[in-house]
Amino acid sequence: MSPEEFRRIGKVVVDWIADYRAGIESFPVRSQVRPGEVRAKLPEHPPERGEDFEQVLRDLDEVLLPGVTHWQHPGFFAYFPANSSGPSVLGDLLSSGLGVQGMVWATSPACTELETVVLDWLVELLGLPEHFRTDAVGGGVIQDSASSAVLVACLAALQRTGEEVARRGITRRHVLYASAHTHSSLERAARLSGVGADNVRVVDTDPDTLAMDPRHLDELISADVEAGAVPTMVCATIGTTSTTAIDPVPEVGEVCRRHGVWLHVDAAYAGVAAVCPELRWINDGVAEHADSYCTNPHKWLLTNFDCSALWLADRAPMIEALSVLPEYLRDEATESGEVIDYRDWQVPLGRRFRALKLWSVVRWFGAEGLREHIRHTVALAQEFAGWVRRDPDFELLEPHPFSLVCFRPRYPDLPVEEANERTHRVMDALNDSGDLHLTHTKVDGRTLLRLAIGSPATERRHVEQAWARIRQAV
Amino acid sequence: MSPEEFRRIGKVVVDWIADYRAGIESFPVRSQVRPGEVRAKLPEHPPERGEDFEQVLRDLDEVLLPGVTHWQHPGFFAYFPANSSGPSVLGDLLSSGLGVQGMVWATSPACTELETVVLDWLVELLGLPEHFRTDAVGGGVIQDSASSAVLVACLAALQRTGEEVARRGITRRHVLYASAHTHSSLERAARLSGVGADNVRVVDTDPDTLAMDPRHLDELISADVEAGAVPTMVCATIGTTSTTAIDPVPEVGEVCRRHGVWLHVDAAYAGVAAVCPELRWINDGVAEHADSYCTNPHKWLLTNFDCSALWLADRAPMIEALSVLPEYLRDEATESGEVIDYRDWQVPLGRRFRALKLWSVVRWFGAEGLREHIRHTVALAQEFAGWVRRDPDFELLEPHPFSLVCFRPRYPDLPVEEANERTHRVMDALNDSGDLHLTHTKVDGRTLLRLAIGSPATERRHVEQAWARIRQAV
Repeated sequence: MSPEEFRRIGKVVVDWIADYRAGIESFPVRSQVRPGEVRAKLPEHPPERGEDFEQVLRDLDEVLLPGVTHWQHPGFFAYFPANSSGPSVLGDLLSSGLGVQGMVWATSPACTELETVVLDWLVELLGLPEHFRTDAVGGGVIQDSASSAVLVACLAALQRTGEEVARRGITRRHVLYASAHTHSSLERAARLSGVGADNVRVVDTDPDTLAMDPRHLDELISADVEAGAVPTMVCATIGTTSTTAIDPVPEVGEVCRRHGVWLHVDAAYAGVAAVCPELRWINDGVAEHADSYCTNPHKWLLTNFDCSALWLADRAPMIEALSVLPEYLRDEATESGEVIDYRDWQVPLGRRFRALKLWSVVRWFGAEGLREHIRHTVALAQEFAGWVRRDPDFELLEPHPFSLVCFRPRYPDLPVEEANERTHRVMDALNDSGDLHLTHTKVDGRTLLRLAIGSPATERRHVEQAWARIRQAV
Repeated sequence: MSPEEFRRIGKVVVDWIADYRAGIESFPVRSQVRPGEVRAKLPEHPPERGEDFEQVLRDLDEVLLPGVTHWQHPGFFAYFPANSSGPSVLGDLLSSGLGVQGMVWATSPACTELETVVLDWLVELLGLPEHFRTDAVGGGVIQDSASSAVLVACLAALQRTGEEVARRGITRRHVLYASAHTHSSLERAARLSGVGADNVRVVDTDPDTLAMDPRHLDELISADVEAGAVPTMVCATIGTTSTTAIDPVPEVGEVCRRHGVWLHVDAAYAGVAAVCPELRWINDGVAEHADSYCTNPHKWLLTNFDCSALWLADRAPMIEALSVLPEYLRDEATESGEVIDYRDWQVPLGRRFRALKLWSVVRWFGAEGLREHIRHTVALAQEFAGWVRRDPDFELLEPHPFSLVCFRPRYPDLPVEEANERTHRVMDALNDSGDLHLTHTKVDGRTLLRLAIGSPATERRHVEQAWARIRQAV
């Protein structure tokens, strides 16, 4: 495809996306296809001859779109949002268009240096501690996801135990700590790093707030030390996936400090809320205690996937754990130690110029616009929570400081199992309707519906409609 | 940014990319900035107010471009190519525009099913074994990189040893095997998985072909078994990073089979060459022996990063190793077992709709166009190698079956160290000139220059110019 063909077809694709976004409400939010339905419509064999791009777009419309769940639909309230704003899409397009690699500084210095600057900007925007900035011993890096971030943190934590895990492998029993509400990526990290899922201790939570109990954490760590294991990392969460519960980072951090255990703070969804000064309290204790901290602009800060920000208070153990320098990657800049080589900060070697999209987002919206987005979506969620609270047919889970609201229909005469089943049926009916998309969680054996607001396309009327549809379905 | 603003600005961005690609030869191939130079030109603080996208583009031109190494430049011969063709960029743009998540089937069925189909297409296009297709017990998946692919393979291999590593963690000494020419990602996988870098055995290579010696492999494995360790995975390479050497997969595979060791085949760069029937011999032994196989369309098959294809002969141990199913991800389709949830096939949880770009590439070029691209670049490299071979001032490394040529200036009167230094100086001079970009490797203590051809923009005249400049610099 010549530059001139790209110019022509690129504009057709831009129009396609603009039309898609403008008309997104005409689609059922959740795809209604059955397993295998899309696949059955695709040719079994690849084409021998090249085809026009128009044919690709036609198949996208006819074959693929029915199989797409529309995450950017204003009626998408499932999981957590995965924002994708215009400036972010265009920043990513520029990255693809440049087609450069940022594995080491020398392979494209701007790719590395812009990432450093934008992550330092984010430290300022979120009110995170100065020592997360890259000009000290810490530093920030873009990961593909919070799952990879917690794995990198775990590898750094293993290294810091002094057991030389990267070199010798796991030779003792290492233990990770989390609550039952911690994201499954923590167990994933245990499986991936050779720690093992059995060596993840589940710390008790407060039955009301669902937050980690620091006293129980302390007991667990002490017992492990006594048993000869190596307490390696605690993962505290600010805004759990299930219900956006907040672990008490100051108290958890004190326990970690006492025992010399790495504290990773997973604020994947909620952390970006700190662009608003009135929500900065959520990060209490992070400055004093966090060895690593992660939040995902690709969830709720208008930046399309993948863009997960990870900061470390001290980058040295991570680099020790991950750095391998083969001859074909040696260069003067790397040898000088003057530059950052982000390949040592992540699982893969290669890396895209992802900073471009985050940079585009911050510049297009400005600090002001980012705050407005968070405030707007939080306000919508609070209003929705108010409606649920006032309705005797529903039960609301408190607190809900962000833009996720968990609730359930009341079935006072039904046993829990049956009530759960009815709740599931309500959810399925809503999702099958195509009008909105919700997911669920389970707390204390009870199924709750989760309504997460976050799409920039979602207006008050969409939340009102959702509430009307939910009441109707119940 | 409203859809209408996106429509307008998106076209400006498309024009920017078309102009960039059309004028790419006006840039020095390798960025000429010094460490910190780009960073110093960027504002220390994020903007409070939003800005126009035009300002972003202006800073891209003025501040960032001088810090960009132009991987799509026809004079880029460094590392391996990282192709980025028009249809691929547009496929990726569609993915960003849709902004959907493919972590489980239900979050966007088309994202999963297109990936399955396109990877099955690739099995056919590359002549890979039928059992890599997803309709049997095997299957293919897009990873971000070959580094992640070998890590996933390693985790599956650990699981298949029956030591229940994912659950219990590493409790015995596991050993991985590779040659000194295997990519550093294998040592990376050892560090990440808890195996430990010390437990990577370096298998001898044939001094002429630089290919792994299967007899030495056999001895190493036997010695480890005797010592009570668990031989876990062998990584054979088809087209090493250093010199595109090819390990003897049939013989290595026999050794693996005899000892029950997992065989991962890393064909990251070279594997895609098998779109040409005359190059299919490179995959000899893969059908009979490979438990996993990886090749990167994002290197040499016109698809922009990230797009690394990984196939498994049996996906079960990988899924056992990686699957964690929290309540908030449970859904009917997953429980039914009728669908693929690619989150269990990779390190991160979230995933972009990356199949769109590979689909766009295969459809735009067709099998015919893909073969033409490989043949064209291989032919250019062979011609270049011929020039080197015929020039008494140069020494050529044989064989060079792909599009990488390794060579060095002859300095018959200089000791090796000094000759190496002179070779480095030649390379630095060429890279500093901005006319072309080369990297180096070291074989047997001797520094070699690497000239890798692969950009669709590279024509015969660019290779001729490169050769003229190289001779001049020597």
